[in-house]
Amino acid sequence: MEQIDLQQLLEQVQQGKIDVVSAISRVGGNIKDCGSARLDFDREQRCGFPEFIYGAGKSIEQLLEIIPAIIANNQPVLATRIDAEKAAAILEQHPEAEYDSRAKTIIIRKKSLPQKTGKLLILTAGTSDLGVALEAQYTAELCGVTTELVADAGVAGLHRLLTATNQLQEADVIIVVAGMEGALPSVVGGLVKCPVIAVPTSVGYGAALNGFTALLGMLTSCASGVSVVNIDNGFGAACAAIRMLGLKR
Amino acid sequence: MEQIDLQQLLEQVQQGKIDVVSAISRVGGNIKDCGSARLDFDREQRCGFPEFIYGAGKSIEQLLEIIPAIIANNQPVLATRIDAEKAAAILEQHPEAEYDSRAKTIIIRKKSLPQKTGKLLILTAGTSDLGVALEAQYTAELCGVTTELVADAGVAGLHRLLTATNQLQEADVIIVVAGMEGALPSVVGGLVKCPVIAVPTSVGYGAALNGFTALLGMLTSCASGVSVVNIDNGFGAACAAIRMLGLKR
Amino acid sequence: MEQIDLQQLLEQVQQGKIDVVSAISRVGGNIKDCGSARLDFDREQRCGFPEFIYGAGKSIEQLLEIIPAIIANNQPVLATRIDAEKAAAILEQHPEAEYDSRAKTIIIRKKSLPQKTGKLLILTAGTSDLGVALEAQYTAELCGVTTELVADAGVAGLHRLLTATNQLQEADVIIVVAGMEGALPSVVGGLVKCPVIAVPTSVGYGAALNGFTALLGMLTSCASGVSVVNIDNGFGAACAAIRMLGLKR
Amino acid sequence: MEQIDLQQLLEQVQQGKIDVVSAISRVGGNIKDCGSARLDFDREQRCGFPEFIYGAGKSIEQLLEIIPAIIANNQPVLATRIDAEKAAAILEQHPEAEYDSRAKTIIIRKKSLPQKTGKLLILTAGTSDLGVALEAQYTAELCGVTTELVADAGVAGLHRLLTATNQLQEADVIIVVAGMEGALPSVVGGLVKCPVIAVPTSVGYGAALNGFTALLGMLTSCASGVSVVNIDNGFGAACAAIRMLGLKR
Amino acid sequence: MEQIDLQQLLEQVQQGKIDVVSAISRVGGNIKDCGSARLDFDREQRCGFPEFIYGAGKSIEQLLEIIPAIIANNQPVLATRIDAEKAAAILEQHPEAEYDSRAKTIIIRKKSLPQKTGKLLILTAGTSDLGVALEAQYTAELCGVTTELVADAGVAGLHRLLTATNQLQEADVIIVVAGMEGALPSVVGGLVKCPVIAVPTSVGYGAALNGFTALLGMLTSCASGVSVVNIDNGFGAACAAIRMLGLKR
Amino acid sequence: MEQIDLQQLLEQVQQGKIDVVSAISRVGGNIKDCGSARLDFDREQRCGFPEFIYGAGKSIEQLLEIIPAIIANNQPVLATRIDAEKAAAILEQHPEAEYDSRAKTIIIRKKSLPQKTGKLLILTAGTSDLGVALEAQYTAELCGVTTELVADAGVAGLHRLLTATNQLQEADVIIVVAGMEGALPSVVGGLVKCPVIAVPTSVGYGAALNGFTALLGMLTSCASGVSVVNIDNGFGAACAAIRMLGLKR
Amino acid sequence: MEQIDLQQLLEQVQQGKIDVVSAISRVGGNIKDCGSARLDFDREQRCGFPEFIYGAGKSIEQLLEIIPAIIANNQPVLATRIDAEKAAAILEQHPEAEYDSRAKTIIIRKKSLPQKTGKLLILTAGTSDLGVALEAQYTAELCGVTTELVADAGVAGLHRLLTATNQLQEADVIIVVAGMEGALPSVVGGLVKCPVIAVPTSVGYGAALNGFTALLGMLTSCASGVSVVNIDNGFGAACAAIRMLGLKR
Amino acid sequence: MEQIDLQQLLEQVQQGKIDVVSAISRVGGNIKDCGSARLDFDREQRCGFPEFIYGAGKSIEQLLEIIPAIIANNQPVLATRIDAEKAAAILEQHPEAEYDSRAKTIIIRKKSLPQKTGKLLILTAGTSDLGVALEAQYTAELCGVTTELVADAGVAGLHRLLTATNQLQEADVIIVVAGMEGALPSVVGGLVKCPVIAVPTSVGYGAALNGFTALLGMLTSCASGVSVVNIDNGFGAACAAIRMLGLKR
Repeated sequence: MEQIDLQQLLEQVQQGKIDVVSAISRVGGNIKDCGSARLDFDREQRCGFPEFIYGAGKSIEQLLEIIPAIIANNQPVLATRIDAEKAAAILEQHPEAEYDSRAKTIIIRKKSLPQKTGKLLILTAGTSDLGVALEAQYTAELCGVTTELVADAGVAGLHRLLTATNQLQEADVIIVVAGMEGALPSVVGGLVKCPVIAVPTSVGYGAALNGFTALLGMLTSCASGVSVVNIDNGFGAACAAIRMLGLKR
Repeated sequence: MEQIDLQQLLEQVQQGKIDVVSAISRVGGNIKDCGSARLDFDREQRCGFPEFIYGAGKSIEQLLEIIPAIIANNQPVLATRIDAEKAAAILEQHPEAEYDSRAKTIIIRKKSLPQKTGKLLILTAGTSDLGVALEAQYTAELCGVTTELVADAGVAGLHRLLTATNQLQEADVIIVVAGMEGALPSVVGGLVKCPVIAVPTSVGYGAALNGFTALLGMLTSCASGVSVVNIDNGFGAACAAIRMLGLKR
Repeated sequence: MEQIDLQQLLEQVQQGKIDVVSAISRVGGNIKDCGSARLDFDREQRCGFPEFIYGAGKSIEQLLEIIPAIIANNQPVLATRIDAEKAAAILEQHPEAEYDSRAKTIIIRKKSLPQKTGKLLILTAGTSDLGVALEAQYTAELCGVTTELVADAGVAGLHRLLTATNQLQEADVIIVVAGMEGALPSVVGGLVKCPVIAVPTSVGYGAALNGFTALLGMLTSCASGVSVVNIDNGFGAACAAIRMLGLKR
Repeated sequence: MEQIDLQQLLEQVQQGKIDVVSAISRVGGNIKDCGSARLDFDREQRCGFPEFIYGAGKSIEQLLEIIPAIIANNQPVLATRIDAEKAAAILEQHPEAEYDSRAKTIIIRKKSLPQKTGKLLILTAGTSDLGVALEAQYTAELCGVTTELVADAGVAGLHRLLTATNQLQEADVIIVVAGMEGALPSVVGGLVKCPVIAVPTSVGYGAALNGFTALLGMLTSCASGVSVVNIDNGFGAACAAIRMLGLKR
Repeated sequence: MEQIDLQQLLEQVQQGKIDVVSAISRVGGNIKDCGSARLDFDREQRCGFPEFIYGAGKSIEQLLEIIPAIIANNQPVLATRIDAEKAAAILEQHPEAEYDSRAKTIIIRKKSLPQKTGKLLILTAGTSDLGVALEAQYTAELCGVTTELVADAGVAGLHRLLTATNQLQEADVIIVVAGMEGALPSVVGGLVKCPVIAVPTSVGYGAALNGFTALLGMLTSCASGVSVVNIDNGFGAACAAIRMLGLKR
Repeated sequence: MEQIDLQQLLEQVQQGKIDVVSAISRVGGNIKDCGSARLDFDREQRCGFPEFIYGAGKSIEQLLEIIPAIIANNQPVLATRIDAEKAAAILEQHPEAEYDSRAKTIIIRKKSLPQKTGKLLILTAGTSDLGVALEAQYTAELCGVTTELVADAGVAGLHRLLTATNQLQEADVIIVVAGMEGALPSVVGGLVKCPVIAVPTSVGYGAALNGFTALLGMLTSCASGVSVVNIDNGFGAACAAIRMLGLKR
Repeated sequence: MEQIDLQQLLEQVQQGKIDVVSAISRVGGNIKDCGSARLDFDREQRCGFPEFIYGAGKSIEQLLEIIPAIIANNQPVLATRIDAEKAAAILEQHPEAEYDSRAKTIIIRKKSLPQKTGKLLILTAGTSDLGVALEAQYTAELCGVTTELVADAGVAGLHRLLTATNQLQEADVIIVVAGMEGALPSVVGGLVKCPVIAVPTSVGYGAALNGFTALLGMLTSCASGVSVVNIDNGFGAACAAIRMLGLKR
Repeated sequence: MEQIDLQQLLEQVQQGKIDVVSAISRVGGNIKDCGSARLDFDREQRCGFPEFIYGAGKSIEQLLEIIPAIIANNQPVLATRIDAEKAAAILEQHPEAEYDSRAKTIIIRKKSLPQKTGKLLILTAGTSDLGVALEAQYTAELCGVTTELVADAGVAGLHRLLTATNQLQEADVIIVVAGMEGALPSVVGGLVKCPVIAVPTSVGYGAALNGFTALLGMLTSCASGVSVVNIDNGFGAACAAIRMLGLKR
């Protein structure tokens, strides 16, 4: 469905091109009622990325209802926050699915995927931030974005970041994933011109406050123009990157 | 100064093209020591926007040192969080300056400013969010970005937002400024494809927590790919938008 | 027992209609001492809904003492926050009980239940809010209220809400259940005249703060006259709705 | 404007009863653009109470633009959170206005006001909660609701509450205003059947947390079915009461 | 008024010793309606200390209504949290009043005051805690309690505390007033047998969190049996001490 | 050991009554080194209650080292926060021990225990507060205090509290245990003269904040002179009560 | 006074070298009772730095009592958190005093001050952190420590830090002062071997949380062995540095 | 690798002593790429302690990759936050490793370890703080530091601390480990001249806030010059101590 263009719709109704009932149903969009979920198949056209599955609050039964509906609609499948037990149940029904226990994601790729313009660099401060970075990477790849992942480049060993200078310069968008004090986006934001999306992670203990210290630090970054997403939200960071890379078309 | 390219620098040293002292000084960048501040005149080349002035912790004396230095370097002046008393002192010295008491900004425009590609839409939920929105608008305009501002389009009167549908569709980047529960970016994020930068404001009382409720709400937005900056940080949102619009070149 | 009417009671004592000991015991109300709990069988007369069971801190032994006492008093049974193990023990003793693992409620219906006037609409933002919505629905139904449940109508896909316009208009009271940023009640509150009870849920992660972000957002809703209950408190929202529907008599 | 009834609108367009441009403008509602504010004159029809003025973030200039516009639309005026200086400026222009420095409200009454059915009781725990209670009272009265205010009935002197038993029993809706530990709504909620709206106030110091302790206490009230609004939000409580009293029609 | 003894009251009504109306009014207690406040003149008999005045939220007009009513009832006057302006107004009307700007209290002593048994020691960690300690001291003295105040005995100079060993041993109740990390009650609690009442103060900055750090520290004291009152609540600590010293009668 | 009386000690040294080494060791007190713990056997003489065992951070091995040492010193044993597994291990070695799974306490009583003067009333708001109340009761009883426990007297059913009026009047000290909004101590504090010790519990969910809402509410109680201990700290409340009852000697 | 050496003291008493009263008074240390303050003149011998004045909670009268007492004891004077009004009053009495309005400190130097071994480097992230850095510098200098201050070296312009490499390498102790996200200590801690003391400042707004974001970030620094003091606590950082430099003797 | 000395490096390049590629690689430091981790083998030279392993977020596979790499580099192994299952897997591969379940650390010692100058005293307030203290002790010992551990010296039994007076006086650096209210560092800081590093622990419940109460208390210690590390961070405290002891060389 296109964006709700009321004027055009009203004109079409007025001109008798479509009847009122169809018009009303179009306002409702292309929604697939799928048990307890209502899948929004217009999202890709509206927002630039398809409906993906947030697995955290969903039962195996619900997941096994939703996944075939997405496949039937000819979309790639991404389910995030899938634990090992749910993954096993999905893999049994969908042997073509791939599970990554670090990222806790299930993906089912689409054969032909139009590649998007632009390069996305994903950078992590430590080894423990890898899972969140991978969630971002899978999301971006399923939407046709070319990605590169550089791990363990935290600021306590500055030379590890400086050796990645070329990659920083060549990226169109950079996602920076960091826990603890979350200082890496400030340093990166001071080095580059392109959009920097900061993802705080829940890595650390005590005063790390399950990621809130990194979140707050990133929001108050002394490097201007860094924007931030929720803690551990690799998926959301990738969606933000896709919105930005859309400008390159 | 270019981005620190160590390899190139070392090669130039090796080839005798520049001497070691110059090389070292280049690593230090184009820094102007200006009393208690050290102005970073390479920032525009490195990050895409020039060094601006965060006025909150600065005395009138410091401001009157820094502003002429920026003018002398042929850059536009933007000083944020300037109260009426500081503004008066600046205007006395710099009659060409413009002060907006709603945004608490001083600006001194540059005569010829290369216009950037792309349209930036700034949307506010309420009348009280206007100051923050104006801070964003001045920042963007001083960097050559074309902006449009639509105020008072909060979700409690949904029709006020829907009448702006055309503007939402035509924008390249949207900054959404909202206080209280900060719900507007979720609705906007679900309607458009382009990057959405959410700016929480400290509008509201009690449970509004001086903007933290809006901030937290925006970070957990059910619309994917919305990214967030600090509370009342219109300046930072504009810098983020400039980074993004750079992709359109 | 009636509301404590001290004057009438004192008059009856004075007139010798009742003796002092009975009077004192009436002040104490119709309390059933049931092991470690003291059941308040006057609550329905006093507050409009009977004594229900908050299962969270109760052992199987305690539950199996309380449930028969409620049945013996000819009241319907509702036990909330019952996990699978407790449910199994109850079902073994009370095969007529119904357990819903999504809502974590046990109910035992009463054969004849006087229906109350008015329609209660229960709306959820996402699929994961369903359990809380069902807790509200069971509570209301056991008190004779007609309910309707519309799930997955969150603001990121506004058309899903707009298709429910008729139901919104016809409801006497609306309970809106939402997690994450909890924006749905603001939108609903701006569309209708009837009471809107907002229930924040603990759906979401990181900055969702286990439901506090939704709670704070609902309390600062830009739509006036929305009132709020505790996080995940479907039961309390239904009780509030029953209090309100009592005005329709 | 009626509620947005798309079907009816589309039918009218189809039948040529209205043209497309008018239809579009009706979707936008009856909005009065008034300088920096856009007044929503359909709110009363849509929500049951008219557009009132939140004075906190507004300048005297803005207030003096908005008030005449509301009067011109034949609506009563209520401006909340008005300090003495703003009040003086308004009173100079509008000698018919009344200012209450305890409630910090300006009101301008309408001559003939249709009275609504039902009685609203406003109860406060202490003397210091009076301002918030008055804000609620003015709001309700301007909407035609009959109110009664009983002050200083906190739980540390239980007999002060018990002497108000009759008033508690006769009310259709009760607003309970309390600061500090906010215990009064729990006691009231256990005594009555009607809706109880709890308003926490910022009265108290230290652990009172500017009203958050009362707010949290009210949300976790052991009396079921009590609903809560924001701290110091007498206005919102009255709006919620008006929504509820609408059921009595 | 005695404690509400319903049985005795009912018996008296039954025996015709008092009529119903008087009985009801006795339930209401000896309440003096005094403008916006309702003074609870039975409090001393019921709780052991008279009605005192919490000055924070009260206007000069209200204070000048309440003070004469208390004097007329033959009770001592204590008004806490009185700033200099209010104090001046009170002193003009009541030249016999005493104002202490450190404690921010107004007191008017009663000529003959029955002395209570027992010694109350008030200990402060630093000089800045003095105001809170004095509020406690005035409260206790007005209730006839003998007090001793030892200031500036914080744990960073342990010898200052140890020289007060005798006073610690001889006290019946000890109030310990401390800000910053609030460690003094832990040390005192480990040295004595008598009740220790800890009063956190808002002395300190940054991580002192306006007294919450001291409050939390006192609540988790490694010395068992220390009990705690609100931040800066010298008045409440004295009331608690009076309750305890009542055991000595 | 007596309280450290330096003067007396120094005089004894000076008079040659004790030698320096003994003097120094006496300053160290009667400490029993017991593996990783150092038992403070002078605590009862110094503080009024013996050294008890905080079981939370201790291994079974440590517990089985400490318990015999306490028995050998002829003191009663109380170990708090003992889970079922640790309890089983202790009961195997000490068949005379008693375990209460609700209170999570192990006690080993002493045959002859001197009874203390005074009555301690322990009151709970709900059934779920029972475990904390029992921890208080065991602690007090092991120290020779006569206790009475009245459960489930919360403020939402005020008549349940009023029927306990006699017990409230006769108590020397009252411990009030309450979760959720923690309103019960305010009501009790307004009814009695004796010391009231409030114990917040972690009963409740969401806005109950694991007991912090009750804690904050109790600290800001409108009833003066209520003092508070840590969340779920029945043990500490009993120790505070013992300190107070010591005044009755 | 020396450290309390009980054994030596007891021996001296035993040998009749000192009498008991003197011994007791020595335990009390060299305390100067000075109105409401008790000055601890042994602190320098005990802790390595003299008694300084925390000016925040002190009146002009108290300050003018304490300062001469310190001068009389032949110690340098440092009073922190002195506002302009207090400073003027002090300067009038002590024309030799120096006031720095940025640091809000009054100092009165001692003529001959033994210089300590070691170099202290004080580094700030931004211009606004200067006041806190100066408080540290004055404290250290008054104790005879050689200091160097490098301002405005934040991580968003990394080259500004790298040009100070030599100074970083030559320092014995480094104090790093930073607000906002507080990232600078992590970078410095990864570059040097010497102790790094991080001082968070309250510079920033919104999510900077008045310095708590910097504080939490420094506590979770990915650079090991960085230790932290309170927000804005330049004084405390200098004291910590003095303790450390004492190891160099 | 030495500290990055750009000038020297550039001179060497200019003089042809090293080629550009080697120079660049030296800037990158001695990094060992080891699967998902990049080991920083220059850290000891740069910071004074080698690269240790933070075990919390690492899988058994990762640990078994990293440990041999560290051994191969001839460094001691310390892995913190290792649970029993991971420990078993490591011990199977490395029988020479030692696991301490209290500290949750794995260590593999190096045969010959150069001893460092200076004595480190580690003090704990209670038995439950032992694990954190041991983590500090193992860290320090693996770096050649002589340590002494004194447990259970909390302030509620002051004599237990005073008997350790000699050890306090002889230490070069003191680490104080304490949970609950964290008062011990304040007392110790007032008794000694040497650096005091405070480590808050998560020991305690309710208001102990998982260690934050101790953390905040230590940051606001009334004893000046105490510095603080993260909650339960024995490792970080030891690293800070090593940095300080380096001054003694």
